[in-house]
Amino acid sequence: MKFLIVGDIIGRPGRRTLRKALDIYKADVVIVNVENSAGGFGITHKVYDELKSMGVDVMTSGNHIWDKKEGIALLERKDLLRPANYPEGAPGKGYGIFEKKGVKFAVINLMGRIFLDPHLENPFKVFDQLYQMLSLETPILIVDFHAEATSEKWAFGIYADGRASIVYGTHTHVPTYDQLILKHGTAYTSDVGMTGCWYSAIGMEPEDAIKRFLTGIPQKYKVEEKEDTVFNAILVEVNTNTGKAISIERIQHYFKRDELTQEG
Amino acid sequence: MKFLIVGDIIGRPGRRTLRKALDIYKADVVIVNVENSAGGFGITHKVYDELKSMGVDVMTSGNHIWDKKEGIALLERKDLLRPANYPEGAPGKGYGIFEKKGVKFAVINLMGRIFLDPHLENPFKVFDQLYQMLSLETPILIVDFHAEATSEKWAFGIYADGRASIVYGTHTHVPTYDQLILKHGTAYTSDVGMTGCWYSAIGMEPEDAIKRFLTGIPQKYKVEEKEDTVFNAILVEVNTNTGKAISIERIQHYFKRDELTQEG
Amino acid sequence: MKFLIVGDIIGRPGRRTLRKALDIYKADVVIVNVENSAGGFGITHKVYDELKSMGVDVMTSGNHIWDKKEGIALLERKDLLRPANYPEGAPGKGYGIFEKKGVKFAVINLMGRIFLDPHLENPFKVFDQLYQMLSLETPILIVDFHAEATSEKWAFGIYADGRASIVYGTHTHVPTYDQLILKHGTAYTSDVGMTGCWYSAIGMEPEDAIKRFLTGIPQKYKVEEKEDTVFNAILVEVNTNTGKAISIERIQHYFKRDELTQEG
Amino acid sequence: MKFLIVGDIIGRPGRRTLRKALDIYKADVVIVNVENSAGGFGITHKVYDELKSMGVDVMTSGNHIWDKKEGIALLERKDLLRPANYPEGAPGKGYGIFEKKGVKFAVINLMGRIFLDPHLENPFKVFDQLYQMLSLETPILIVDFHAEATSEKWAFGIYADGRASIVYGTHTHVPTYDQLILKHGTAYTSDVGMTGCWYSAIGMEPEDAIKRFLTGIPQKYKVEEKEDTVFNAILVEVNTNTGKAISIERIQHYFKRDELTQEG
Ligand SMILES: [Fe+2]
Ligand SMILES: [Fe+2]
Ligand SMILES: [Fe+2]
Ligand SMILES: [Fe+2]
Ligand SMILES: [Fe+2]
Ligand SMILES: [Fe+2]
Ligand SMILES: [Fe+2]
Ligand SMILES: [Fe+2]
Repeated sequence: MKFLIVGDIIGRPGRRTLRKALDIYKADVVIVNVENSAGGFGITHKVYDELKSMGVDVMTSGNHIWDKKEGIALLERKDLLRPANYPEGAPGKGYGIFEKKGVKFAVINLMGRIFLDPHLENPFKVFDQLYQMLSLETPILIVDFHAEATSEKWAFGIYADGRASIVYGTHTHVPTYDQLILKHGTAYTSDVGMTGCWYSAIGMEPEDAIKRFLTGIPQKYKVEEKEDTVFNAILVEVNTNTGKAISIERIQHYFKRDELTQEG
Repeated sequence: MKFLIVGDIIGRPGRRTLRKALDIYKADVVIVNVENSAGGFGITHKVYDELKSMGVDVMTSGNHIWDKKEGIALLERKDLLRPANYPEGAPGKGYGIFEKKGVKFAVINLMGRIFLDPHLENPFKVFDQLYQMLSLETPILIVDFHAEATSEKWAFGIYADGRASIVYGTHTHVPTYDQLILKHGTAYTSDVGMTGCWYSAIGMEPEDAIKRFLTGIPQKYKVEEKEDTVFNAILVEVNTNTGKAISIERIQHYFKRDELTQEG
Repeated sequence: MKFLIVGDIIGRPGRRTLRKALDIYKADVVIVNVENSAGGFGITHKVYDELKSMGVDVMTSGNHIWDKKEGIALLERKDLLRPANYPEGAPGKGYGIFEKKGVKFAVINLMGRIFLDPHLENPFKVFDQLYQMLSLETPILIVDFHAEATSEKWAFGIYADGRASIVYGTHTHVPTYDQLILKHGTAYTSDVGMTGCWYSAIGMEPEDAIKRFLTGIPQKYKVEEKEDTVFNAILVEVNTNTGKAISIERIQHYFKRDELTQEG
Repeated sequence: MKFLIVGDIIGRPGRRTLRKALDIYKADVVIVNVENSAGGFGITHKVYDELKSMGVDVMTSGNHIWDKKEGIALLERKDLLRPANYPEGAPGKGYGIFEKKGVKFAVINLMGRIFLDPHLENPFKVFDQLYQMLSLETPILIVDFHAEATSEKWAFGIYADGRASIVYGTHTHVPTYDQLILKHGTAYTSDVGMTGCWYSAIGMEPEDAIKRFLTGIPQKYKVEEKEDTVFNAILVEVNTNTGKAISIERIQHYFKRDELTQEG
């Protein structure tokens, strides 16, 4: 079974790029991280519907899922996850079991704590608990590990090796070039990278970020909309009997701005 | 002129891998980040000599350069840099003008502050000053931007676009897949990635990192030595008249552990 | 000359408390940190005028001064400072020379970087520069060191000992019990502490902070308004000829909510 | 029943000061935070014995307890605690029930996560669990909340109000001036403050800290030994039937260096 996995989608250019890309790259299941999908901050009903209409099967997220009230309400949908290691009492849920073409698979969303958010529960231990429960249902476990620190990502990948089918990172918005199948069968990459305007401060207008770095004054960040875009994704094939990864392939596709706006 | 640029070299497996790789990948100039080259922490005389004997032209570094006293003393060598934005009073220097095959080029080492070290001077402003000075000497400016946060790296890349020939990141130990030539001629990538054992916690034994994440107790990290290795680098061609980048290419080469130990 | 120095004033309860307290505690000069004075976030014209009408001579601030656009515009006023170590290009200024009862004195606002904001210039070095300049004008230098880390605060106090008349901390909102005159004549305390509702999450409604700590989800913080309040300040006497501190005294005064609302 | 509670003891000057102070200030129970008691980093057998010989009943600690191997081994002693919210698998324990003069009381050691250590479990939730268990045994619960951020400390204090007898902070090494009895009977203060040399970088030689702030280069910190010292503590009386606090009083006592060394 083939999984097309897309990282953080940045606003409208990200969504338009995704629509184009899904015409080109085909898979059995499409999983997308939506924490920046609506104007760069959170998600809305409209964006949720737009993404579903493109064929997105499961949506994961991260720290930005709380940015819009609408997005928080949407966490009731079965196919929209937030990191599972938010403490008890947080709205929404951090995992789900899904079925496609007669095959059941589980998706787990986790979030790192280093340089990111110390309020969360231990993602390593939460994974242990979820693994125990979910592996009774299906051998296919897919983990979006939304995190900043590369040490935390790699340590988690090795920790989950042989238990998860796929461990992939999101959140940094930069694709990494370390897609590999670990010793015990887990497909791994540190970050899928963003989908949106490429010549930008990780998807946002660079002027504001540069101003922050030069003056120290907090800025309002806006989605970069006027540049060409990039689609970053991984395509992973998983053996549906064993849950082991068969292959992991990186996809990077540039789109001219004109290609997108003609129809988006 | 072709520059082969290598990121953080992790201990002995990193050095052995580098020696092998330099037999295969040829360039006019070789630049290596050495902050983890001696046992994972800093550099020693012996390691410095070993790297020179392989043909390394310029060594950059980062936060770990202070880990060994020997390494601090070595900062007097013209070809060993530490980040230029350490405040006045820090030993060593953060840039140098070098010459190879009759061509002069400048190398600047900078360090990010976000999630890394708030004690440093503003890397954007230090770059402005160095650019003013060094661009009088040569149009070729190569910047090792040793940093954690991807927003700081990308914002800096765009900020320096058209002034630097190459801006490349180091420090996260994970290669990124965003090598590109920016609008005004600067070759850019967020992180070159490490050279060392691949199945590891960014070069170190994963057991200790996992223990830290599970128990919270600080651990002593040791270089991973028993696994196969990876060579991560970028190869950039620069027009020596204009200082603009002509091409940037990512290199990733796996080595079997046996290949290395036979002669290393 | 006697200086009454007040830390972070939290919203309306803080302002009302200040008005009451200034009827009781008298001094030649009143200096107040206003970064949280308007609804807990920044300052407005109305609040600025209100504070002036109470007899506040100089206003300092910190990281929250950027929270309201109005407050940023107000930075043009001579008597409203923001930390001096924001990089060049930031609006406003970080120091001023003032005169009261025929005596000139300088106020410097600085901000720490540890756990607070890595974008700023080195506060130790900025102090050196300002000292050189301002000590030509007056021996009385008063420093609001707006910072989080106690190590940075104490290290700065000792660094400035003998050059500053007073070094006092703000930002943590908790008064410290370490008011002392250092070896070379500088009056020091790590934090003046806030003025506002005492039974609170450092001035804000505790329910939201607790919710954050329990669920990890970001909350909108609101000023606590329904509790009794506290006035925290220091009273420092400085020799106007030498600039050395003669005495430093801590003031803490509780007010019943009823006392305040009758007239505020 | 009277509890004399002492914060972080810094090395030899801290221990000598404690010995002197315990001759002057009397209480039924003495609780001391020992994370910096041996040379500023961790604890040793010798120091443990020295502290017991002075009459210390219970020792709490924090992030520095792991600095010395000897100290980790000592965590088997019933009366030496480490923060209870280190994850399962960490050596030692984070609470204990003790008895003195026929009265049982529980001591809980917790650690904050903000600006300190994101690896730990949620201290609010761990407190809930321990409260459930320990309040069956005794109404007297004493909590050392070892933390950096004042918002986390105050939020915790209010959260535990009415359940804990005493919540006091340690770790910043600076005494705070907010000792009070909260609405539901919990005695609270944000930080007890350190015991050791006063004119110092929170107990350590200031030269090294200043060097760090000026040059950015990591330094080895050494205990300040040549200055006069300060004893910082709180004295809290608790109703042994209800577990409610009756009074909380701050103690601060200076000692001349000569007084200490004559006999230490
Ligand atoms: Fe994101
Ligand atoms: Fe994120
Ligand atoms: Fe490194
Ligand atoms: Fe580094
Ligand atoms: Fe404040
Ligand atoms: Fe502040
Ligand atoms: Fe401590
Ligand atoms: Fe501590």
